[in-house]
Amino acid sequence: MTDAARLETRVRELALVGGSGTSVTRLGLTALEAEARDLVRSWCAPFSDDARVDEAGNLFIRFAGADAEAPALLVGSHLDSVPEGGRFDGALGVCVAVEAVASLLGSGARFARPVEVVGWADEEGARFGVGLFGSSAAFGRLPAGAADLRDRNGVSIAEALRALGLSGDPATARIDPRSVHAYLEPHIEQGPRLERAGRALGVVTDIVGIYHGRVRVGGRQDHAGATVMGARRDALVAASGLVAALERLASAVPDTVGTVGEIAVRPGAKNVVPGECVFSLDVRAPSEEHIERALRGLGEEMARVRREREVAIEVEPLQRVPVTPLDARVLETLVAAVRSVGAEPPLLVSGAGHDAQNPSLSGVPTGMIFIRSTGGSHTPAELASAADAALGARALEHAIRALAA
Amino acid sequence: MTDAARLETRVRELALVGGSGTSVTRLGLTALEAEARDLVRSWCAPFSDDARVDEAGNLFIRFAGADAEAPALLVGSHLDSVPEGGRFDGALGVCVAVEAVASLLGSGARFARPVEVVGWADEEGARFGVGLFGSSAAFGRLPAGAADLRDRNGVSIAEALRALGLSGDPATARIDPRSVHAYLEPHIEQGPRLERAGRALGVVTDIVGIYHGRVRVGGRQDHAGATVMGARRDALVAASGLVAALERLASAVPDTVGTVGEIAVRPGAKNVVPGECVFSLDVRAPSEEHIERALRGLGEEMARVRREREVAIEVEPLQRVPVTPLDARVLETLVAAVRSVGAEPPLLVSGAGHDAQNPSLSGVPTGMIFIRSTGGSHTPAELASAADAALGARALEHAIRALAA
Repeated sequence: MTDAARLETRVRELALVGGSGTSVTRLGLTALEAEARDLVRSWCAPFSDDARVDEAGNLFIRFAGADAEAPALLVGSHLDSVPEGGRFDGALGVCVAVEAVASLLGSGARFARPVEVVGWADEEGARFGVGLFGSSAAFGRLPAGAADLRDRNGVSIAEALRALGLSGDPATARIDPRSVHAYLEPHIEQGPRLERAGRALGVVTDIVGIYHGRVRVGGRQDHAGATVMGARRDALVAASGLVAALERLASAVPDTVGTVGEIAVRPGAKNVVPGECVFSLDVRAPSEEHIERALRGLGEEMARVRREREVAIEVEPLQRVPVTPLDARVLETLVAAVRSVGAEPPLLVSGAGHDAQNPSLSGVPTGMIFIRSTGGSHTPAELASAADAALGARALEHAIRALAA
Repeated sequence: MTDAARLETRVRELALVGGSGTSVTRLGLTALEAEARDLVRSWCAPFSDDARVDEAGNLFIRFAGADAEAPALLVGSHLDSVPEGGRFDGALGVCVAVEAVASLLGSGARFARPVEVVGWADEEGARFGVGLFGSSAAFGRLPAGAADLRDRNGVSIAEALRALGLSGDPATARIDPRSVHAYLEPHIEQGPRLERAGRALGVVTDIVGIYHGRVRVGGRQDHAGATVMGARRDALVAASGLVAALERLASAVPDTVGTVGEIAVRPGAKNVVPGECVFSLDVRAPSEEHIERALRGLGEEMARVRREREVAIEVEPLQRVPVTPLDARVLETLVAAVRSVGAEPPLLVSGAGHDAQNPSLSGVPTGMIFIRSTGGSHTPAELASAADAALGARALEHAIRALAA
C-alpha cells in the first residue's frame, strides 16, 4: 500500500538537498545531484542493492524480475532542478516511482521482468545549456561535442563529470533501447490545466514540438534628446511590436504558445535610442503545422515592421524539437491505472519537454502521468499536494503491475 | 583668421586620445581625460600660461583682459565622451573655442575682460551616472554625496579624482557665478534638424526639460511550454505595450520625445515567461506642460494595462531637469555673429542636456551655437565637416569680440 506520509517525508527530505524553504537549487552534474542520488539509493536499499550510476550521472536502481534477462520496465524522472526552482519538478516523479515500487514489493508482489527506478541527470540543462542531458546520453541522442560545452565558469561537462568520479565521456552511458520494455514517467503538470479542471491526475498523449530562435532587430542608435520622434529607427520599439504580435498570433492558433523570455538592447543606456535589440523566440504546439502557422504569421509581421520602420530583422533558428507522440498502448494502460484509483484523467499534451522524449524517439513504448501542481513550475511556489502525489503513486502501482507483473 | 586646417588637425589629434578610427572612448574622470586636458593646454601655450585644473577635473585656460578684475567670458565645452562615442561631441566645442580665441589673439586683438577656454570634466556621466559633473561642481549644483558614487568596479568619484592627483572633494571646485560675465558653448547638434534644413549653424533658445524614471512591471513567472496563452501574466508583453504607447504619445505631443533605452527581464531565460520587466523612461520637451501631457497619457495607458493584464506597474521618478531657457541678449549676440559670417541660423531647442544648463541656472548669461553634424551623436558615425566647424569658429570669434573686446 502506498504510504502517503512516507512519500511526503521523502519529498521534503530530497528538497533539503540544495534547498532552503520551498526553494531548491540543485543543478545537474553537481555534487548536490550526486547527493540526491545517494539519498534515493538509501530509500531503495531494503529492496535492492543493485544500483548503478552511468557515465552521464544517471541513477538506475534495479529490482529483480522472474525473468532476469527480459527487457526492464523503467520508471522515474530527473533529480536536478533549475536555479531557485521548487521541490516537485522532477523530484516528485522519482519519489513517486520509488514509493510505487516499494509499496508493491512491500506488499509481497513479485515482478515478471526487472523494474528499474531511474533518476535522470541534468534534465533542466540550466548549467550547460543541454536540456534532457542524462536521458539523451542513455539513448544515444546527445549532440556531438556535448562533453566539451562549458558553464559560465569555464568548466566543461566532461570536467564536471570527472569531478564526480566519472570518466568524463557521457556518450558511453548509451544503452540498447531494446533492453527497455517500456518507460513510465510521473511528473507534475507544469501548467494550470489539471488545477483548472479540478482533476488530480492526467495522462499525456504527446509532447509538443518546439521551435527556438533568436531575432535581431537592427535600427539606428541615436541621441534620446536630440532625435525627433519622426527621424528614429528605434530597434526596441520595433521589437515591441513583434513581442505583441507573437502573443496575438500564438493565441490565435489552437494549442499553441509563443514566448519571448530573453531580451536585450544595445547600447542599453537610458538616454540613447536603442540601435539593436535581440530577443529569443520559443514557439510550441502539438503539431508542426501549428508551429508553422504561428511562425508564418510572425514572418509577415516582420516584413511589415521592416518596411514601415526601416529596420533590419534577422531570424536565426536555433533548435527544432519534433512533436513526440507517446505510445498509444501505454497511454491506455495509464488511463486504466488512473481510473482504477477512482480518478478520471484528462488527456493532455505536454507543453514542456521531458526526458520521456528520448526513449520515445528511440522506439521505447513510453507514457507519462501528470500530477496536479499549483503555483506554476520552475519556481519555489510550485506545489503538488500530498494527497495528489499519493494518488499518483497508487495509479503508478497499477501501471507497473500491468506492465511488469 | 580662423585656420580651418589647424582646427581639423586638432580635432583629429584630440580623437587619438582614447580613440581608434572614428570611435572614441574617453570617459570622464580618467587618465585619458587628463591627457586631453594636457593636449588642449599645449595648444594654448603660445597665448597663455595661466591654466588651472580645478578639484572636479575641469580645465580653465585664462587669456588676459585689459581689466584683469572684470568677470571673465567663459567659452568651451566638455572633453569626455561616451563609450564608443565619436570625435565631435564635446571635443569639437573645445577645439572651436581654442581656435576662435587663438585666431583673435593671433591677429592682434586685445580683450577688455579676461576670456577663459573651459574644458568641462565628465559631462556624459557614462562612468558614475552623474551627467554634467564638472560644470555642476563649478556652479555648486552637484547632488549631495556625489563624490561617494561608485563605478561598476567599485571605484568612487572621490577615489577617481585622487588617482588623478586631485583632492577628492569636487565640491571645492565651486566658483562664484558673479565672476563669470557670460558663457558660450559651441557644440555639434545632436539631432538632424540643421542637416535637414541645409544649414551649417544654429543658435539654441532653450534646453529641454527632462524626466527620467524607471518602470517595473510585475507579472508572473511561468513555464513557457506548459502555460497556455490565456493563463499568462507576461511582464514583457505588458511592457511592450507601454514601449509602443510611449512612442505614440510622444509623437502626439509637439516637440516632445520619449525613449526607452534600457530594458531587462527576469528571470531572462528563453523557456520562461518573464515574471518581471524593468525599463527606463526618458521624456523631454521644451515645456514642463508637454512633459506632463506625455506622462499623463502614459499613466492612463498603465492603468489600462494593469487592469487588463493583471500585472503590477510601478513608476519610480529618478530625475527631473527643468526646462532651461538661455539668455535672450546672448542669443541676439550669437544670431548676429552667425549672420556676420554669412549664415542664417535656425533657432533651435536643444533636446540634449548640456553643461550650459549649469551657468544658466546659476544666473550667468549663457548661449549655445550648434554646428551641423551628420550620423547622429554618441556614435563613431557622428561627423561635423571641417568647413562647418571653421564657420562655427569664425562666428564664435565675432561673439567673443562682441562680449569681451
